[in-house]
Amino acid sequence: MTPAAPDLATAGVRVPYDALLAFVSAVFRAREVPDERADTAARALCYGDLSGMTSHGLVNLTRLYLPLFDAARVDPLAEPRPVADRGAAVLVDARKALGLWHASEVMDLAIQRAATYGIGMVSVRGATHCGCAGHHAARAVAHGMVGLVVSNCGGQRIARPPGGTLAMLGTNPLSVAAPAGDHHPFVLDMSTTVVPTGRVREAARAGVALPEGWLADDDDRPVTDATAFDRGDAHLLWLGGSATGGAYKGFGLGLVVELLAALVPGAGFGPSPPALDGDGGPSGTDDDIGMTAIAIAPHTLRAPGEVHRDAHTLFGTLLHCPPVDVAAPVRYPGWHEAEHARRSLRDGVPLAEPLYEELRALAADLGLAPPAATART
Amino acid sequence: MTPAAPDLATAGVRVPYDALLAFVSAVFRAREVPDERADTAARALCYGDLSGMTSHGLVNLTRLYLPLFDAARVDPLAEPRPVADRGAAVLVDARKALGLWHASEVMDLAIQRAATYGIGMVSVRGATHCGCAGHHAARAVAHGMVGLVVSNCGGQRIARPPGGTLAMLGTNPLSVAAPAGDHHPFVLDMSTTVVPTGRVREAARAGVALPEGWLADDDDRPVTDATAFDRGDAHLLWLGGSATGGAYKGFGLGLVVELLAALVPGAGFGPSPPALDGDGGPSGTDDDIGMTAIAIAPHTLRAPGEVHRDAHTLFGTLLHCPPVDVAAPVRYPGWHEAEHARRSLRDGVPLAEPLYEELRALAADLGLAPPAATART
Repeated sequence: MTPAAPDLATAGVRVPYDALLAFVSAVFRAREVPDERADTAARALCYGDLSGMTSHGLVNLTRLYLPLFDAARVDPLAEPRPVADRGAAVLVDARKALGLWHASEVMDLAIQRAATYGIGMVSVRGATHCGCAGHHAARAVAHGMVGLVVSNCGGQRIARPPGGTLAMLGTNPLSVAAPAGDHHPFVLDMSTTVVPTGRVREAARAGVALPEGWLADDDDRPVTDATAFDRGDAHLLWLGGSATGGAYKGFGLGLVVELLAALVPGAGFGPSPPALDGDGGPSGTDDDIGMTAIAIAPHTLRAPGEVHRDAHTLFGTLLHCPPVDVAAPVRYPGWHEAEHARRSLRDGVPLAEPLYEELRALAADLGLAPPAATART
Repeated sequence: MTPAAPDLATAGVRVPYDALLAFVSAVFRAREVPDERADTAARALCYGDLSGMTSHGLVNLTRLYLPLFDAARVDPLAEPRPVADRGAAVLVDARKALGLWHASEVMDLAIQRAATYGIGMVSVRGATHCGCAGHHAARAVAHGMVGLVVSNCGGQRIARPPGGTLAMLGTNPLSVAAPAGDHHPFVLDMSTTVVPTGRVREAARAGVALPEGWLADDDDRPVTDATAFDRGDAHLLWLGGSATGGAYKGFGLGLVVELLAALVPGAGFGPSPPALDGDGGPSGTDDDIGMTAIAIAPHTLRAPGEVHRDAHTLFGTLLHCPPVDVAAPVRYPGWHEAEHARRSLRDGVPLAEPLYEELRALAADLGLAPPAATART
C-alpha cells in the first residue's frame, strides 16, 4: 500500500500464477532451499506481482534475494532456534533463514498462540528480508484474527531523523491485516517513510519524475529526480514529509517499528555507534534484521458471529461512502490489491517486459524451463 | 506529539504541580468521583499542561469532561466489569467509567499480564475519553516495558476516507511508549489525522492561521482559517495529507486504531450505517468509546541488562546525530515533553491567562480554593 504511483510503463506479458510459483520455487530449490520452504517463499515473493505491489515482487529476485544467497547472507538450510517462550510471547533466533519463508512460519506461530491466549507475539532476531510484510500479516485473516508484522532493516540506515544530517533508520515497514466480513480483507502494508526505496528505484528505472515530498536535498529542498537517491544527492523523507505535515509522526512510527522489531528480540538496529561514521547517505547492511509478528484473536474474547458482523458493517459502510468522483469509489487498504490479485489469478500475472526477460535469462542460467507467457498486456 | 505548532500566545501564570493536582482532584471529587480515582484522573489531565501538550490538558476540563458528568455520559462510580479473560488478553466493559482514571487501570492490568506472558492486552468497550493516550502508555516504562494505547472516538465521526464526502472516523489516537536507557523515555502520542481537533481549536482560540495541509474544503483546496473547521467549511486531513504524500497510510493507521480499539472489544465505531446520513461535517457522539492497551515485556524474553543497554545506545545515538542547525539538536518523540515536564515541576506548570481565569471561576462555582499562582510567564 503506497501513495499514488508515478505513471510507469506497463507493456509486458501475463503468466499464469501457478506457472510463476513453480518457476520461482524451482529457482529457490536450485539454491538448496528445501521444497516446502521454497514453495512458501515463492508465494511470498509472487504476492508482490499478484497484488500489484510490483516494487516488492519478482523484481527483487535477482537484485536482492539471489545475491543474498551468493554472499552467504542467507542460509537456505538454517534451523531457526527458539530462545525464550512465555506462552503468549516467543523469541526466536532465525539464524539467517530465508525471510520469505520464515516470516510466514513466524506469523503462523503467533496465530497458534493467539488461539490460546487471545494474543500471540513471535519476535525474531537474525532474520533476513521477508518481502511484503502484508503477505505474512494477512495469514491471520483466515483465522478470523488481526495480524501485525513489523520488520526493521537490521543495521541498514536509509532515513535521517528530522533535523539530522546522518541516516539512522531503515524504511521500517509496518503491516496490519484484518478480516472485513464478506468484503476483501483489510491489509495495510506501508513503509514508515513516505515511500519505500523500491518505489523510488522503480521510478528511476522507468525514467519518470517523482512527486514533490518523497526526496529532499541537504537543504531540505524537494528533489523530483528519482536517480538522485542512489547517486547520494537526495534523502528519503518520513511519512508526513515536512515538520508541519507531521514528519515527526512518521519518524516516531519508524522508531516504533525499530523498537518492536529490534529492541524486543535483540536484533541489529540502525541507530548504533557506526551510524555516526556515515556521510549522510545510506550506510550499513541489512543483516541481523529484526521482525515481530503479533496476532490478536477477537473471537476468543467476543462471539465470533459478532466480530464478523461488525467487521462487515465497518468496511461495508466505508465502501458505501459517497465518493467525490463517481469514477473513484471509496476503498480501504488491501481492497485494490485483492482485486488486482483476483484479476491476476483469472488472466495471468502481469509482468513488465524487462522483468520477464530477466526471468527468462535466469531460467537459461539455471537450466530451468522459463514460465510460459499466455498473453501480452 | 504533534507537528510544529502555530505561534500561540503564552502569557499567563505558573502554578505548582501539586497545587494543580490537588485542585483538579477536588473538582472531580465534587462530581462524586472516589478519592483515589480522582487523584489518578487529575494526574492524567494535568499531564497535558505539565508536558506542554496543552491542547489535551486542563483546557478540556470545562469543555469536555465536566459536560460529560452533567449529561450522565460518564459515571463517576461505575464498576468496570471483566467480560472475558484468556490470560494474556482481557476484555473489559468500562460501563462509562471516567476514562482519565480507568485508562491507567487498564494499562496497569496489561503490564501485569505481560510480566507473566511476555505480552498483555486489555481491550475495553463502553469507555469514555482518556485524555492523552501517551500518559497511560508511559506507565509501562517504569516496568521496563513497551506500552501501546489506542482509542477510537466511539460513534463520533470527524475525518473522511480519502476520496469520500462524509465523515466516517475519529482522529483515532495512537501512542507507544518505551524505555530509552538513561535518556528520557520514548513517548509517541499522535492522532492519525495530521493533527487532533484540539490543535485546530487551540489555533482558532488564539486567532492564528494554520499551516497548509491540515484542513481542506470540499474541493480539496487547502484551508488555513482555523475557525472554518467548527463552521463546517473545512475537513481535517489524514497524516500524509495528499494522495502522493501518503494520506492513504494515515487513513490506514486510523483504521488500525478503529480495529484494535473497537472491533476487538466490541465498542462503538464510526463507519456504521448512521454515518451515511451525515452531511459531510462531524457527526455522532463519542459514547461507547473503545480502547486497547498492550504491554510488551522484552526483559521476560531477553536479559534485562541487554534491553537497557540497547535502548540506551539506540536513543543516545539519535541524540548524537549531528543536526542541520546546531541550535536545534536531534530529538525523538517524548524528549521535549519530558524536558517541559522537568521545568514545570521545578518552576510551576505554565497556564495561559484565560485558562487560569477559567479555573478560578470554576473554583468559585464549586466553593473550592483556586490553585495559587506563584509566578507570571
